[in-house]
Amino acid sequence: MTADEEHKIGSNWKLMLMYDGTDFLGWQVQPDRATIQGTLADAIQRVTGERVLPQGSGRTDAGVHARGQVASFFLEAPIPAENFLRALNRKLPESVRVLQAEIVGNDFHARHSSKAKTYEYRIYPLRAGGVCAPWKARYVWALGWPLDVERMQEAAGLVMGTHDFTSFAASDPDLATRRDNEEGDDSAGNVRTIFESGWRADGELLIYRVRGDGFLHHMVRNLVGTFVDAGRGQLAASDLARILDAKSRSEAGATAPARGLFLDSVEY
Amino acid sequence: MTADEEHKIGSNWKLMLMYDGTDFLGWQVQPDRATIQGTLADAIQRVTGERVLPQGSGRTDAGVHARGQVASFFLEAPIPAENFLRALNRKLPESVRVLQAEIVGNDFHARHSSKAKTYEYRIYPLRAGGVCAPWKARYVWALGWPLDVERMQEAAGLVMGTHDFTSFAASDPDLATRRDNEEGDDSAGNVRTIFESGWRADGELLIYRVRGDGFLHHMVRNLVGTFVDAGRGQLAASDLARILDAKSRSEAGATAPARGLFLDSVEY
Repeated sequence: MTADEEHKIGSNWKLMLMYDGTDFLGWQVQPDRATIQGTLADAIQRVTGERVLPQGSGRTDAGVHARGQVASFFLEAPIPAENFLRALNRKLPESVRVLQAEIVGNDFHARHSSKAKTYEYRIYPLRAGGVCAPWKARYVWALGWPLDVERMQEAAGLVMGTHDFTSFAASDPDLATRRDNEEGDDSAGNVRTIFESGWRADGELLIYRVRGDGFLHHMVRNLVGTFVDAGRGQLAASDLARILDAKSRSEAGATAPARGLFLDSVEY
Repeated sequence: MTADEEHKIGSNWKLMLMYDGTDFLGWQVQPDRATIQGTLADAIQRVTGERVLPQGSGRTDAGVHARGQVASFFLEAPIPAENFLRALNRKLPESVRVLQAEIVGNDFHARHSSKAKTYEYRIYPLRAGGVCAPWKARYVWALGWPLDVERMQEAAGLVMGTHDFTSFAASDPDLATRRDNEEGDDSAGNVRTIFESGWRADGELLIYRVRGDGFLHHMVRNLVGTFVDAGRGQLAASDLARILDAKSRSEAGATAPARGLFLDSVEY
């Protein structure tokens, strides 16, 4: 690349972001609606004067939270990373925080360059007659059914490895096939590889953690809805194999609510 | 009391409530604004058909949360407590939860009958360049200054016992003197007795817990603002005695933000 080209495109920025998705209509910018992408673009513009469209590692849906979402974009004007981070956090609402800001190589792209992602899903088991505290309710799926956690763990283990996850893709064909959802790499069709998939107890919460090379739209929430069906005794754990084989959304469980889902981290 | 009078006034209900105060303009009902009292009155009406004005143990301000607020009111129609509790939680937004519902003696009044109250105030110490996660920010005061906790603890200890807390009462005379704020018992003027007052570390949080026979409007937040001044080195702990003696709001520190304050419990 010549110095001239470099000047033209400026610096390629990589941000790591946390957000509370409750009051946003998801990642993707939409006219007259609060979205993470639009809110971030506004803050960048207020700090630098430049209007850019930050690219996320994937679109999170309305109500989905993130601990380590990654976004990338080019800026012409130079700015020290530490100042940029602080200035962004001053302009952003406190529901969105920038954890890291750095200049990366020009070939880096938050979505295309990602190698793996980790999501966590939080369930709050409600005791009989119990309630979920308001400050927890925004970040969990509160469930009053008794759950057989051992069975949920067995079911979670069965999705590890490389599978066609069509049965767990969003049933809306427009959503299921839109190219950049979640991973933008259509060469694999609906085949994804899951490296880690398991439940753990964390205080009063039950947390599902899944790490994979990519995820179809709604995939984590559809997996969780299906594991909960297993936990309630409506499915055997071994039914997971049958459901995967069926390659049909109608075989799997319902989509778990967005509020319990956190994009935990993205690996490059 | 005759059977006739009993029929006329119905049953005296006592509710224990939790709420996230972020999206409410405080406890007290106001036209066209979301308040806890108004929201609870609406839910009671939807469940029972009766319009009542629930009396709280005290008015919490906009943005203040509660783990154990208590409200009382009379209802004519009989309803089993367990059903009432469940029905209320179905009608209420999830930012307000009813933890207990019971019928109590007719002389019980959530405010007039209270003997002691406990508040907690949560500080989140920010490391240099650190951020406060969005799911914590609603419930803490995030502070970037280094704090001398030992000095804050010493200062907190000095307000225990019976004192005139005029220096820590809201400076707005209308607020400071309105009769039911916080405790409604004007015979004591601005004299209150504090039974417990101390800081503790809880994970990454610094929590102030105070238990007293009553609190003036803004009193806990003004105490916390003053303790933080001590923690920052702007006051000696021993200045607390001088500030109390001055009986002047201008001697004490700033009012700490509402978001960190929780009404923990009320004793009868």
